[in-house]
Amino acid sequence: MAILVCTERRLKIGATQKHKGKSGMKYVYTFGGKTAEGNAQDKNLLGGKGANLAEMCLLGLPVPAGFTVSTECCTAYFAAGGEFPAGLSEQVLTALRKTEEVMGMKYGDPESPLLLACRSGARSSMPGMMDTVLNLGLSSATINGMIKKTGNPRFVWDSYRRLVMMYADVVMEKAAGREPARGEGIRKLLDDEMEVYKESRGIKEDTDLTAEDMEALAGNFKRLVESELGVPFPDDPMQQLWGSIDAVFKSWNGRKAVSYRRIEGIPDSWGTAVNVQAMVFGNMGDTSATGVAFTRNPATGENTFYGEWLINAQGEDVVAGIRTPSPLNDDTKNDQNRHMKSMQELMPETYKQLDTYRTNLEQHYTDMLDVEFTIQEGRLYMLQCRVGKRTGTAALNMAIDMLEEGLISESEAVLRVAPAQLDELLHPIMDTTVEEKLTPFAKGLPAGPGAASGAVVFTAEDAVASLRAGRPCILVREETNPEDVEGMRAAEGILTARGGMTSHAALVARGWGKCCVVGAGELNISLTERKIVVGDIVLKEGDVVTLNGTKGFAYLGEQPMINATENPRFQQYMGLVDKFRTMGVRTNADTPEDAVLAREFGAEGIGLFRTEHMFYGKDATTPLFLLRKMILASSVDERKAALEQLFPFIKKDIKATLEAMDGLPVTFRLLDPPLHEFVPHSQGNKEELAKALGIDVAEVEKRSDELKESNPMMGHRGIRLGVTYPEVSETQIRAIFEAAAELLQAGKKPQPEIMVPVTCDVRELTFSKAIISRVYNEVLAAYNLKEIVHSVGTMIEIPRAALLADKMANEAEFFSFGTNDLTQMTFGFSRDDTGAFMNEYLDQQLIAADPFQTIDQEGVGMLIEMAAQGGRKTKPGLKIGICGEQGGDPASVAFCFSLGLNYVSCSPYRVPIARVAAAHAAIKAK
Amino acid sequence: MAILVCTERRLKIGATQKHKGKSGMKYVYTFGGKTAEGNAQDKNLLGGKGANLAEMCLLGLPVPAGFTVSTECCTAYFAAGGEFPAGLSEQVLTALRKTEEVMGMKYGDPESPLLLACRSGARSSMPGMMDTVLNLGLSSATINGMIKKTGNPRFVWDSYRRLVMMYADVVMEKAAGREPARGEGIRKLLDDEMEVYKESRGIKEDTDLTAEDMEALAGNFKRLVESELGVPFPDDPMQQLWGSIDAVFKSWNGRKAVSYRRIEGIPDSWGTAVNVQAMVFGNMGDTSATGVAFTRNPATGENTFYGEWLINAQGEDVVAGIRTPSPLNDDTKNDQNRHMKSMQELMPETYKQLDTYRTNLEQHYTDMLDVEFTIQEGRLYMLQCRVGKRTGTAALNMAIDMLEEGLISESEAVLRVAPAQLDELLHPIMDTTVEEKLTPFAKGLPAGPGAASGAVVFTAEDAVASLRAGRPCILVREETNPEDVEGMRAAEGILTARGGMTSHAALVARGWGKCCVVGAGELNISLTERKIVVGDIVLKEGDVVTLNGTKGFAYLGEQPMINATENPRFQQYMGLVDKFRTMGVRTNADTPEDAVLAREFGAEGIGLFRTEHMFYGKDATTPLFLLRKMILASSVDERKAALEQLFPFIKKDIKATLEAMDGLPVTFRLLDPPLHEFVPHSQGNKEELAKALGIDVAEVEKRSDELKESNPMMGHRGIRLGVTYPEVSETQIRAIFEAAAELLQAGKKPQPEIMVPVTCDVRELTFSKAIISRVYNEVLAAYNLKEIVHSVGTMIEIPRAALLADKMANEAEFFSFGTNDLTQMTFGFSRDDTGAFMNEYLDQQLIAADPFQTIDQEGVGMLIEMAAQGGRKTKPGLKIGICGEQGGDPASVAFCFSLGLNYVSCSPYRVPIARVAAAHAAIKAK
Repeated sequence: MAILVCTERRLKIGATQKHKGKSGMKYVYTFGGKTAEGNAQDKNLLGGKGANLAEMCLLGLPVPAGFTVSTECCTAYFAAGGEFPAGLSEQVLTALRKTEEVMGMKYGDPESPLLLACRSGARSSMPGMMDTVLNLGLSSATINGMIKKTGNPRFVWDSYRRLVMMYADVVMEKAAGREPARGEGIRKLLDDEMEVYKESRGIKEDTDLTAEDMEALAGNFKRLVESELGVPFPDDPMQQLWGSIDAVFKSWNGRKAVSYRRIEGIPDSWGTAVNVQAMVFGNMGDTSATGVAFTRNPATGENTFYGEWLINAQGEDVVAGIRTPSPLNDDTKNDQNRHMKSMQELMPETYKQLDTYRTNLEQHYTDMLDVEFTIQEGRLYMLQCRVGKRTGTAALNMAIDMLEEGLISESEAVLRVAPAQLDELLHPIMDTTVEEKLTPFAKGLPAGPGAASGAVVFTAEDAVASLRAGRPCILVREETNPEDVEGMRAAEGILTARGGMTSHAALVARGWGKCCVVGAGELNISLTERKIVVGDIVLKEGDVVTLNGTKGFAYLGEQPMINATENPRFQQYMGLVDKFRTMGVRTNADTPEDAVLAREFGAEGIGLFRTEHMFYGKDATTPLFLLRKMILASSVDERKAALEQLFPFIKKDIKATLEAMDGLPVTFRLLDPPLHEFVPHSQGNKEELAKALGIDVAEVEKRSDELKESNPMMGHRGIRLGVTYPEVSETQIRAIFEAAAELLQAGKKPQPEIMVPVTCDVRELTFSKAIISRVYNEVLAAYNLKEIVHSVGTMIEIPRAALLADKMANEAEFFSFGTNDLTQMTFGFSRDDTGAFMNEYLDQQLIAADPFQTIDQEGVGMLIEMAAQGGRKTKPGLKIGICGEQGGDPASVAFCFSLGLNYVSCSPYRVPIARVAAAHAAIKAK
Repeated sequence: MAILVCTERRLKIGATQKHKGKSGMKYVYTFGGKTAEGNAQDKNLLGGKGANLAEMCLLGLPVPAGFTVSTECCTAYFAAGGEFPAGLSEQVLTALRKTEEVMGMKYGDPESPLLLACRSGARSSMPGMMDTVLNLGLSSATINGMIKKTGNPRFVWDSYRRLVMMYADVVMEKAAGREPARGEGIRKLLDDEMEVYKESRGIKEDTDLTAEDMEALAGNFKRLVESELGVPFPDDPMQQLWGSIDAVFKSWNGRKAVSYRRIEGIPDSWGTAVNVQAMVFGNMGDTSATGVAFTRNPATGENTFYGEWLINAQGEDVVAGIRTPSPLNDDTKNDQNRHMKSMQELMPETYKQLDTYRTNLEQHYTDMLDVEFTIQEGRLYMLQCRVGKRTGTAALNMAIDMLEEGLISESEAVLRVAPAQLDELLHPIMDTTVEEKLTPFAKGLPAGPGAASGAVVFTAEDAVASLRAGRPCILVREETNPEDVEGMRAAEGILTARGGMTSHAALVARGWGKCCVVGAGELNISLTERKIVVGDIVLKEGDVVTLNGTKGFAYLGEQPMINATENPRFQQYMGLVDKFRTMGVRTNADTPEDAVLAREFGAEGIGLFRTEHMFYGKDATTPLFLLRKMILASSVDERKAALEQLFPFIKKDIKATLEAMDGLPVTFRLLDPPLHEFVPHSQGNKEELAKALGIDVAEVEKRSDELKESNPMMGHRGIRLGVTYPEVSETQIRAIFEAAAELLQAGKKPQPEIMVPVTCDVRELTFSKAIISRVYNEVLAAYNLKEIVHSVGTMIEIPRAALLADKMANEAEFFSFGTNDLTQMTFGFSRDDTGAFMNEYLDQQLIAADPFQTIDQEGVGMLIEMAAQGGRKTKPGLKIGICGEQGGDPASVAFCFSLGLNYVSCSPYRVPIARVAAAHAAIKAK
């Protein structure tokens, strides 16, 4: 009932009043006591955490009261060069008074002191990337009151000691202009101090430290902080609060956060909100606890409550992977944690309450949620809820389940699987028939889906280096932290010795759909020796292992894998996808085998068949040899003779491809790359060629050298070869028409499309069409046919062709954007040479993303839009597609949809992703 | 008086009625008998020749009657695949009847047969490039009547023999689908037949052939034609006429004509008109003559009647250079032709009449004209008049003279010199103080201006090859013909043994402003032995000679030259130019010396100073060595140390350049080229560098190799270097500001502009400006200055920067279009690699002109326009210029003017050309 009331209330509130009237901007929004100044719709303003805290209050859930300083305030703060905007101070004070009222305590009060937590919260979750300060408000004035109130001096001194440590690390070091690497700086000094203290007292575990020890440590910490940073730890609670708000804002532009945003594509301009909230403590004894849970299983999608908890602990103990948590309930138990006590067992009443909240929240949000809770002396508090990250498999299963449960609509179900998540479904999983017979060398938690093999590396840097060297690797870490993200991305899979399903490694890997096993506690990892010891087994850097991220197992060696697309729900989901999709999806395929595979993935034709690709990587085989003979011919006659020998090979591949795609269009691109790419390099090949051409090796080298170019990407290629060597185009064209003619006679329905590459002027098309038309008529006559259905079009990959697309369309029946080359020319970036500066460009934020990965919508996109409009102006029905590698990038697919393109074409494995992206775009456009 | 009447009549006629009403297009326009259906304004329709024939009729001048088949008919003819349009036949017949009426003779009439000439006539003169057939109408039916009428059987049979020869060559061979090289094919067979006949009769000169000989020859010719071409020579005058009209149309697409149009930039779509006109004969005895004249001296511009004539000759005898003609009058006499009789001497009355026409025509046209006339048995006929081609010197002198004579206005005077003609004025002439002491080895006619030195070559092909090899050459020919044009263009100068001032060589060279000496009859040229013999002197291929085209002299060896700009009229003209010019003209200069020179040429600042260019071509000198040290540094510190040593050299050049341009803006472009361009190649340089860097040679080579790129043009260059090596930019920026500061303190007015190259995103500018601004403040402080006036802008040379110019303008105070790179990226043409296909593209007409010579207004121009508009939208006062090499190309200058650019910048020698082009554009825009 509460839910219904709240929904109505939310509707009544509508858009939260965002301005404080004429006196100035409203920057602070309160929540608590079953009411709030915002709701779940206000993510842009309050950040995800703040908006959902407000929503939970409106839903009547027990949320510690507090207030959110908005993202607008953050933006204003940075715009003013790091100054708080006018009026903020008053607004914070007012909100603080309200929090005090709801909680019945006062911040800084000697008798009944309220303690506060100060947490970041951006629009989009950035787990662990920004800063948090807890226990604010402890000071010489409040410590005694707190001790009196809790009757637990050790807890209070421990909290104070933690506050000093955290504040020094997060606030004071930053204020001193330092940003040391994790594990360095003041934090390390204080950690070391604690170790020294423990040693001097002969104490091993933190839990053995007494209240007096904690008090002494806090004193030592404060002295160390002042001597190291030159400023004393502030004893004024208000100063602590403001320092923390400032630090959270600053952490938006911290190194970790910026790097994470780059990977996730989050704009720098969004800013973070700051959530100031009354502290509740999960570490006040055995009736206290803290936990994290998912309303359904985030790895499999199963509809069971899934979570982890820790008795007598603070929240970050779970998230940070410092202690391995216990399972929340029976459903969460598995072989690794079956011996641990669940909340369901130890606190059945509170668990039941939590389970009710779970149901209410999921019904209200109609999605799987990830919640954080704390139990303080038996009382349950909800600290966070948000839509939970999930694996691709889980996303797929939940989408179909929730659709069947009537929770969501078909279109919503389609939207529930991110296109990129499909990648993981398409990734291989371990072959179970083989796996049954294997014994894992280590077992952990199944934190990221699928399987992965690779060489063991021990640092993020090594993982990146390994990727660059083209060597798949598995990143093995004691535990991961935000500084490992680039290495995690580079690795095929991640294996950690510590942490649970909600640890950093698990969260990140799941978000990316990357294979990951966490908390494999048997592993003894030595970073310095670069080895792993597990019982008798010793693994060194470079040894190959295989992870099963779906089970949480690790095996020695490289193990066989199979395809995950056999999940019947995958086909069901793709059926839904195609119900909403309006834009076509084709594939880029250069062989009949690729064509067959792509068709299985749902490709509706081939958007790019590179006629020359059949020769790549087949050194010294007959067709390549003949191609070389053709290329190095010194006269038209010599070249024609070589082409004649080459012809049957070309025709054979073309025919088989047309047959594999029977009934669907196949776009054949005429010869594109500079000829120098094909010249022989080995002495043997040169000699063989020299013999065949009746010349000496020196002459072969001379002719090869003549083909060298200063900038081959802008050199003698594509239609330019077609103009100077029309006989080469002619051979390809004839092969296409003859192949089609023979298939027609065999009762098939070939649909060849001939595409002229690298054009910059319509006259090149006129020139090409004259040849095509002549050969067409010759083939018709030779095969005694009346018609071979076909079309002639052009790549739009040179800026000039895009600019003059209205003219190009006079001679083209279709356009296909070659976004690789178009990006090269539009940016003046040679793909092969951007390595020297691209990282610096990304780091310096001079460019938003690598434009070879995702279409640069601003610049290249403008050309694409101009060309599409220009082409359709001349020829309203002009068929337009894209065949660059970005054709499988979801953002690029959405962009192509927005321009009204007829189809995208991408590599076979990305076809399902493009289909989903196209369906998303179509649904969102409605 | 006649002139005034005619002018009025012309005004009344207005635009000639171009359509024949509803029944069909009007294709045929008559002229003759002091009336005409068109006038001089109708060049597009009637071609230049046709329009001016009509105008002369309207002026009351004696023009043989005839009619013009319009260019529209030619277009329709080609559009219909080489078929005459409907209705043409009737229109030609009607016009022919009118011609017969005016001339009092009838075409094909046995008693009083009218003979016709059929000549081409395009909008723009294409001398000798298309076909002509004379004496049409002679047939078995008319020959006797003609003999009776003229009483001159030899003349008639000679005319018939010529008709057969010309018709077979021009009409019949083409109809047979052949296009042999000049001097080959049926023409050669007939020439050979004539030689054989003469030998068999023991006859040496053509003049010794009798009427019977001619008749016999005509018979032999007809048999040969039929056996060789398989068709008899047509005896039907109407068939002759239609065949000729068809052949003239076809000649528009003949090899010669197409090649000429390519060079002259004449569109293929214009088509030619055909002028069918009553024949008059200059070869009917000693009271007959033919001649060509200019109303002023076309070489010098002097206001004297200037021409050549031949008694008892047909017009092409003069033009073709077969006989060296006599001077028209005293004013035309010179050392070489003083012994010959002039028309003024031999036919004083007729000469006086011609001189009157000269005056009338020049007053009417207010320009120098080139006229052709024929005297048939004492009666003067005007066959052609057109605005005469002239040297740049002549154009300049005439413009100033006619202005002073009150004939033309100031703006008209400015327009009278084509920008490209200035090139020739700026070209060197011989140093007279040296020339006085020299003896020419040959004397000829001063056909093309200025002086030129080069190695002797004997064929057009050799001239082209020599140009490609970078070796200046002088093309030496017995006489030139249209097939030599490419070689003539390639040569520095042209020297011929035969032909007059109106010969092919003279006309073409003058049009181009190329140094040329014709009719140097002492030369014995042996093409087979590749040598020239003049008395005792023997010159072989490759020997260097110097021509004085202004005097007509040729000297041995390379002779010193001086500047032609000292002509006082040049300064007077340039003064006028600047009166009308509104767009600025700057120069591209990389050294203080260039800056001084350019300022003398009128440059209003430097539009492009390439800071790195001071290092080019100075192998192993200190600055280059230091630059290399900097480039191959392996750490920032090493690089900074090298930069510190380099700094004084950079600053010195910058300071000297700012000083040379004091008070005018100097745009310094920051480092642009890929670093690999600077690495050492010789072993010695590598060793020296290795020593300085304390590494071994292998390491030097390794570091150099690392800088190699696949496509350096799109690689790590420009601002991309500035991002990865900001210390390099900083050094340049500091040098600029310190140089300016020191000049300011010395009381100078430096105006530095800092230009960031190769940008593709506004954030690159933001990045650069942060460095610039920091260094600026540091320099201000160091020099205790309040301000150094300067601006910061960017090159627009990457398509993306042009597309996003509105954003670029947020951070740029000026744009400068780098049209070289912009053209490369827009076309996807690497300048270094277009050689493999550019000629084929031009030949196949796939591209209108080399876009690196003149801006591609359609494609690249669209980007420039978008960028200019986008930039000005953001910043209305944005200063915009162009600094690519096309900045000195007149068509490109006019284009820049049309877009409202503030300035163009070009190499020093092209500054005056750009000034004139800018003035023309401004005048034409009014």
